[in-house]
Amino acid sequence: MQATVLDKQLSFLREIDRLKTVVRQSPLLDNSRKENSAEHSWHLAMYALLLNEYAGGSVNTHRVVQMLLLHDVVEIDAGDFPIHDESSSNSQAEEESEAAKRLFGLLPQQQGNEFLALWREFESAETEDAKFAKALDRFQPLLVNVFTSGGTWKENDVSLEQVFSRYGPVIQRGAPLLWDVCEQWVTQHFSEQASRASGLQKGDKE
Amino acid sequence: MQATVLDKQLSFLREIDRLKTVVRQSPLLDNSRKENSAEHSWHLAMYALLLNEYAGGSVNTHRVVQMLLLHDVVEIDAGDFPIHDESSSNSQAEEESEAAKRLFGLLPQQQGNEFLALWREFESAETEDAKFAKALDRFQPLLVNVFTSGGTWKENDVSLEQVFSRYGPVIQRGAPLLWDVCEQWVTQHFSEQASRASGLQKGDKE
Repeated sequence: MQATVLDKQLSFLREIDRLKTVVRQSPLLDNSRKENSAEHSWHLAMYALLLNEYAGGSVNTHRVVQMLLLHDVVEIDAGDFPIHDESSSNSQAEEESEAAKRLFGLLPQQQGNEFLALWREFESAETEDAKFAKALDRFQPLLVNVFTSGGTWKENDVSLEQVFSRYGPVIQRGAPLLWDVCEQWVTQHFSEQASRASGLQKGDKE
Repeated sequence: MQATVLDKQLSFLREIDRLKTVVRQSPLLDNSRKENSAEHSWHLAMYALLLNEYAGGSVNTHRVVQMLLLHDVVEIDAGDFPIHDESSSNSQAEEESEAAKRLFGLLPQQQGNEFLALWREFESAETEDAKFAKALDRFQPLLVNVFTSGGTWKENDVSLEQVFSRYGPVIQRGAPLLWDVCEQWVTQHFSEQASRASGLQKGDKE
């Protein structure tokens, strides 16, 4: 028997349940556990609804929200590639591209093509919608790190310069006003870290 | 110093991180753990994007997605009230209404009012958008129960008649074609349960 349109849609919706089991490096703000990619996607969609006035260009919020809701489903096959892991970024792109084809291929053809096109648009980060979506996808974990006293930066021994270079260009490009705030947060965070470290050192000597 | 518009938006976005720690009764499809309300909201938004053709009336998908993204944030204060728990539904409505005022009150006034209005529209379930959103909010856990061999129905000893009365009217009202599928699933599920139980009984006697 041939699968109906609804069968295909439900089979995709069941398959992406697995995104709830893909664990990211970022913690929750209460530091109780790591965040998973499904709840991360929900949170980003809320960021997009509330912060669209800070987009660098003119954006269609509904498209931005859609991109953010689906941007990570490829991790079901390809896993999460943490920003501070510098290995294998070529194979990552290939694996994600294959994952997108398989997953969106579960859908009825037209919807599958639409989702695949949106995912590719997000990845290419060339349109205003995609630039803003990408900026939020960097902004949220930066905020989490600042408000959990270092989060993944502490774990991975990441410097102020590395934060600036890994987050800065993407956030600045898609949401310049949000980057202004980030610069202040990050500078303050690392300066506090430095004075704490020097305080400790001084304490050691005394 | 007065909180800026952005300060208020970020303080709301940080506060709702707590939705990731509100645990629902429904399991994940792989039965590895219970679902939380943030990832549930993400999943529902994906349902809305893909299944809008089954809405009973003419809907604005962007509004439906927004409602589903924010519909559960009140649980941060009020907790999750499981569908199969029949106690205290009056106090539930009050607690949720207070929670909505507090949480959306963290936002800049205009955005807070917009979100509060959307949440109330969802709760009232009178507009086409809200009816469809509500239908999906019932449809997803029903699907989970069917595909996890009973899920919360088994745990709470819920009968076929109770499933029909607790899920049926809401799904039928907002997404009649989806209810047709549910009826088949539910009937088949309970008939399989019954033949398994009678097989066991027969086995006991022999």
